[in-house]
Amino acid sequence: MRIFVNDVAVRDGFQIEKTLIPTATKIAMVDALSETGLAKIEVASYVNPKLVPNMADGDEVLAGIQRKPGVLYTAIALNLKGVERAVAAKARADEINVVMSASETHNRANANRTHAQSLSDFAEVVKIAKPVGMLVNGAISTSFGCPFEGRISEEVVIGFVGKYLELGFDGVSLADTTGMANPRQVASLAGRVVKTFPGAEITLHFHNTRSMGLANVMAGIDAGVMHYDGSVAGLGGCPFAPGATGNICTEDMVNMLHDQGFETGVDLDKLIACANQIEQIVGHAVPGQVMKAGKTLELRPIPARLTQEDFAKA
Amino acid sequence: MRIFVNDVAVRDGFQIEKTLIPTATKIAMVDALSETGLAKIEVASYVNPKLVPNMADGDEVLAGIQRKPGVLYTAIALNLKGVERAVAAKARADEINVVMSASETHNRANANRTHAQSLSDFAEVVKIAKPVGMLVNGAISTSFGCPFEGRISEEVVIGFVGKYLELGFDGVSLADTTGMANPRQVASLAGRVVKTFPGAEITLHFHNTRSMGLANVMAGIDAGVMHYDGSVAGLGGCPFAPGATGNICTEDMVNMLHDQGFETGVDLDKLIACANQIEQIVGHAVPGQVMKAGKTLELRPIPARLTQEDFAKA
Repeated sequence: MRIFVNDVAVRDGFQIEKTLIPTATKIAMVDALSETGLAKIEVASYVNPKLVPNMADGDEVLAGIQRKPGVLYTAIALNLKGVERAVAAKARADEINVVMSASETHNRANANRTHAQSLSDFAEVVKIAKPVGMLVNGAISTSFGCPFEGRISEEVVIGFVGKYLELGFDGVSLADTTGMANPRQVASLAGRVVKTFPGAEITLHFHNTRSMGLANVMAGIDAGVMHYDGSVAGLGGCPFAPGATGNICTEDMVNMLHDQGFETGVDLDKLIACANQIEQIVGHAVPGQVMKAGKTLELRPIPARLTQEDFAKA
Repeated sequence: MRIFVNDVAVRDGFQIEKTLIPTATKIAMVDALSETGLAKIEVASYVNPKLVPNMADGDEVLAGIQRKPGVLYTAIALNLKGVERAVAAKARADEINVVMSASETHNRANANRTHAQSLSDFAEVVKIAKPVGMLVNGAISTSFGCPFEGRISEEVVIGFVGKYLELGFDGVSLADTTGMANPRQVASLAGRVVKTFPGAEITLHFHNTRSMGLANVMAGIDAGVMHYDGSVAGLGGCPFAPGATGNICTEDMVNMLHDQGFETGVDLDKLIACANQIEQIVGHAVPGQVMKAGKTLELRPIPARLTQEDFAKA
């Protein structure tokens, strides 16, 4: 079974870093990630550069990367203005990923928009992005819970998936923005979405804030979802929880999938090599585990004392 | 559905700490854990104190703790000599947990024993521990993979479960000693063990070395296993992987279980309070996530700017 793996570290990871990361470093990381076999790489965010300084150079990153055939390069936007900037770029992203939160409180906090305002923007997005050949993906933040409102009813989320698809979006992401999803919940909501919208490209975007990230991936796979976002080295964080981790770690997810016989098309060694560069780029420890522990079946040499003849005969 | 949660931090966590942890600190931590509603607490290890200095004071810890009715206090041993010490203790553990590795190479590296030697010891263990009223649990290390030999055949593990139960053991733990298990494998092996030995008390002991720990717990629950070991604050490590985490984090597991409606009998707030003490005891950062992020549905106040009237009308 094929699982499609996306990486969002250059956007969702770098965006919360306090140190300004040089454009050339971002370009080099995207180029390295391009060689790993990932399906999508999120490289830019057309948000307010005053609020998110590390995302101010999206146009330059998109112009500077070597695009690998078969890889989709995506950018994110929270409103029409952002998408207009994405469309106006000389080197456009292949896909624009627009974001609205299932929780209206969170949508107002994150995008300064009511649901009605976001959906009205999104209708215009389709009109300006599609004609220039951009794909449009719609993310639904806080699909599994909002740090202000708590659980969001499944009907609300399913309703927004339907709206997105009616608008003509090419895909929909259900995002667990602050790591509130649990496996049984994922099984329920993702299962209903897959059944309600057969054929729609659904992506799950999990955060590992409370250690449930990879358990949620397994629940998503069992529910029939085949596209997953991760962040190389587990880069990212949660603005509400200092010290807590952010996105699920891409190479930890790929290692888990490969151990179970899923095909991802990803070269795990190359992905781990990318992860090993991240710590130096951001200047602090990162949560990735496989980069520290090695791939599961990377065996250790048998201790010399055990191969001595006297013990062997014991 | 009831899930039984055990904690092994005072043994599996503290044993690899380089700083010598005072006996009084261990006693205080066990006493605090006793108030949380855990099913079992592993408090001592009768191994060679020269090799594991932090486990030299097991007798003192067992003598100093306040035993809470309903909680089982357990100690671990790798051979008959260790069990003899456990039996000779003035304040005995309620249960002795003997350990053999499914991989013979790992058993020789860890216990300096062949399989035949370990099993021969274990026959004697039953004879000396049961008459004094101690329960006997048998752990099978490297059940899901060995860092020297790789995957272990399920037949070998199932065979050892059978041997343990024939010897009269009260329970059997399948341990993923170096974090090599994946969810599909857990579903298969745990499922076969549960079906082959109906009624046997099976415990799963996972490490989160490669981030799959809680995914494996879910696979174990789906396979019908109801007993799980964790380590408060995620304390522990992997001797083969510096920087990688060790045992799954007890309070992260409990938070996940409660989110899904499982009953554990554990007071999660009290458990998090224990986790918050661990960092100071060991003097370094610990991997627990819920202790940093808060319980899943611990909501945040809505930002003040969103409640202003002009925005509310937007």
